[in-house]
Amino acid sequence: MSKRLNLLVFSGDYDKALASLILANGAREMDMDVTMFFAFWGLLILRHPEKYSQDDKNFFERIFSWFTPKKAEELTLSRMNMGGIGQKMLKKMMKDKNKPMLIDFLNGARKKNVKFYGCKLSQEVMGFTKEELIPEIEIIEVDDYLKDALKSDIQLFI
Amino acid sequence: MSKRLNLLVFSGDYDKALASLILANGAREMDMDVTMFFAFWGLLILRHPEKYSQDDKNFFERIFSWFTPKKAEELTLSRMNMGGIGQKMLKKMMKDKNKPMLIDFLNGARKKNVKFYGCKLSQEVMGFTKEELIPEIEIIEVDDYLKDALKSDIQLFI
Amino acid sequence: MSKRLNLLVFSGDYDKALASLILANGAREMDMDVTMFFAFWGLLILRHPEKYSQDDKNFFERIFSWFTPKKAEELTLSRMNMGGIGQKMLKKMMKDKNKPMLIDFLNGARKKNVKFYGCKLSQEVMGFTKEELIPEIEIIEVDDYLKDALKSDIQLFI
Repeated sequence: MSKRLNLLVFSGDYDKALASLILANGAREMDMDVTMFFAFWGLLILRHPEKYSQDDKNFFERIFSWFTPKKAEELTLSRMNMGGIGQKMLKKMMKDKNKPMLIDFLNGARKKNVKFYGCKLSQEVMGFTKEELIPEIEIIEVDDYLKDALKSDIQLFI
Repeated sequence: MSKRLNLLVFSGDYDKALASLILANGAREMDMDVTMFFAFWGLLILRHPEKYSQDDKNFFERIFSWFTPKKAEELTLSRMNMGGIGQKMLKKMMKDKNKPMLIDFLNGARKKNVKFYGCKLSQEVMGFTKEELIPEIEIIEVDDYLKDALKSDIQLFI
Repeated sequence: MSKRLNLLVFSGDYDKALASLILANGAREMDMDVTMFFAFWGLLILRHPEKYSQDDKNFFERIFSWFTPKKAEELTLSRMNMGGIGQKMLKKMMKDKNKPMLIDFLNGARKKNVKFYGCKLSQEVMGFTKEELIPEIEIIEVDDYLKDALKSDIQLFI
């Protein structure tokens, strides 16, 4: 039976999202099963690059949607972000070394059949509709996350 | 034998505290045993809402006690806190969707017999007396945490 | 067979570095095997206190090297850093209680044969040469980290 990696991705920082998706891609290449459960800020990583609905949102949900990054590549760093300069610098340094970007690791994980779960409570509170997130995502509750984590060999909170 | 969830709560951020206590409540509802070990900033989540002693504290401990949130509901967000506006906005969005607040999840965990441990080293350095923390807390050392974590099926650092 | 603790140290914050090294020392004292895998900001914890090469670095790598802490004891706090005041205050509070500093826990872990791994991708992107890091470090890839984590009883992402 395959070994399993289970990641709870709470963070919506560019660097931590990168770490989680590098782990996910690496584990799939070793034929491990990989589950990623995105909660809170982590949901921002999975926003659909084009779909964006203002109509269904109340006042606070609109503000929230407005002030948070619309795309994975726009996420900010957990430190040294310096109004975006640090993030641009990190991306430049990655490109100089021919490393893939966050979006490449995300698309890699989608192609490699990483299982994407979203946290129902977070989705409801933030007011994202399912259509505003990438189509692969399945919305589940915390007990489903726990059941999956119990079956896994490695569990990390990122 | 019941499955066990072990959380090392290092963070004192409102959103991360919320995540840890949602996991703890969810796991107890599935009849898992749950241990939470609060270290460093995490101890702030368990400050007693009324008890507060200045007399036993030295100068730095007083300053520390002063400049940190006195109550769980006053904790700040790990990002987008914006001087408290972001935190108030998140709480408003949670109320609009009839979600419990952090304090409700904390009291739920206390009623459901989640085991609360506090880190001795952190407690000593920060200068909190045992009376300044919620009564359920038991102060332990890092090796006791590790022994408990070794017996657990899921271990997370939050 | 000994129990194993596996830490993925992503953070380069003084307080989180402290937490990871307190866990590592505690686990070694219980005769557990301990592996620490330093990625991203975590690599900053292992900078060699004296060695520092500008010549091999490109423009961005020089800036990066310049604007990040040169020594473990210069790392900043994950919160309440307040331009370094919070960090100095925490250190003072630790000294008042006769607690070891971060550098002591780091040297303790080195003496106790904690296994130090560094993330190859992070090292390349940040432009650190192997000589600029402590000599005990071995540079590995993410799949080596995963293999080690799979053999471990506790895995944490810090």
